[in-house]
Amino acid sequence: MREEFRAELAQVSRLLVEMANAARLAMRKATVALLEGDRTEAEQVAMTDNEIDALYRRVEALTYELLARQAPVASDLREVITALHAASDIERMGDLAEHIAEISLRRHPAIAVPEELRPVIREMAEVADRIAAKSVAVLSTADAVQAAELERDDDQMDELHRQLLAFMLGAAWRHGVEAAIDGALLGRYYERFADHAVNAGNQVVFFVTGETAAS
Amino acid sequence: MREEFRAELAQVSRLLVEMANAARLAMRKATVALLEGDRTEAEQVAMTDNEIDALYRRVEALTYELLARQAPVASDLREVITALHAASDIERMGDLAEHIAEISLRRHPAIAVPEELRPVIREMAEVADRIAAKSVAVLSTADAVQAAELERDDDQMDELHRQLLAFMLGAAWRHGVEAAIDGALLGRYYERFADHAVNAGNQVVFFVTGETAAS
Repeated sequence: MREEFRAELAQVSRLLVEMANAARLAMRKATVALLEGDRTEAEQVAMTDNEIDALYRRVEALTYELLARQAPVASDLREVITALHAASDIERMGDLAEHIAEISLRRHPAIAVPEELRPVIREMAEVADRIAAKSVAVLSTADAVQAAELERDDDQMDELHRQLLAFMLGAAWRHGVEAAIDGALLGRYYERFADHAVNAGNQVVFFVTGETAAS
Repeated sequence: MREEFRAELAQVSRLLVEMANAARLAMRKATVALLEGDRTEAEQVAMTDNEIDALYRRVEALTYELLARQAPVASDLREVITALHAASDIERMGDLAEHIAEISLRRHPAIAVPEELRPVIREMAEVADRIAAKSVAVLSTADAVQAAELERDDDQMDELHRQLLAFMLGAAWRHGVEAAIDGALLGRYYERFADHAVNAGNQVVFFVTGETAAS
């Protein structure tokens, strides 16, 4: 019974890693679509999001089975519920990548992001990618050191988000309202993607250590 | 054992209703803060959000206890996990009300929303309030008829969101970039608040009927 439980939980954990890798990939593609106006990449984001949703349903089904058949208690129970929460965070990451791809499609063949704004968006995308990669690592190994780094990376994301808004509100902005609205929404999407990735990682560490990572 | 399970689940359900009522109240206060520049109301939103977070932790703790002590299976298990998902949605509703209050505080004593934009924001707030009220009703009674209405109300919210964006992108817009950025974020917050309220309601109906409401 015990070994069976660990084996099934390991299976859930592998699915979470697969989901998080897919969410990371979806965001990379969404960023290429956005900054290069690449329609094919944008369309692939929707497909990857569908795969993430399918994986989420598998995690849910497996979790139900585990709870029903094994009736775990104490830390075992906590681990199963943590996995369910992490899956829900990763599922949202896929949605947010899709929102970014949708903005790029709405402006196609034009590029939604004015040239001056691309460096900060590119940096936000890089931080998002780094956070997603660490979240994958934490989901694989429950490494508390990498989890603590997640918080620092998230601070960097918040700082970039402030820069983005300041730039659009500055006197030099000459791209009008439409690009600013897109910019504001894009900033929000990257930031939320990072938040969910940090949450997914932190939950796993909370499970292992019983403490939330420093915030 | 069985009666105990039903009694504890009823307790969880009461907490969910309390959470959803608090989230609805938080959003009403946030809207007053936003449209009337009322600082006191804005500050109360943060307090209400703290109450919602505390209720969420109680729901989580009770749910763990229920799962550990009663080891529910089949539809009982589904009901417990549904409650956990609904709680997570309602917790987010409180956060979104707080984001709206924060925008009003950032612009205080000015009012963040230009006069021409207030009618559509007011309408979005009304639809959000109606959806939250129905979601409370569905959480109390699992009424599938009201749940089906949730979807229609949500379509109305999406339509208002489109109107808001169209207005800011129209030739008549003369409030510049800052108000447009706020408007875009506000639109997103009201829309997400409604989405989470609809999700919370739908999950409960899914539990009762085994079918998702028409989407």
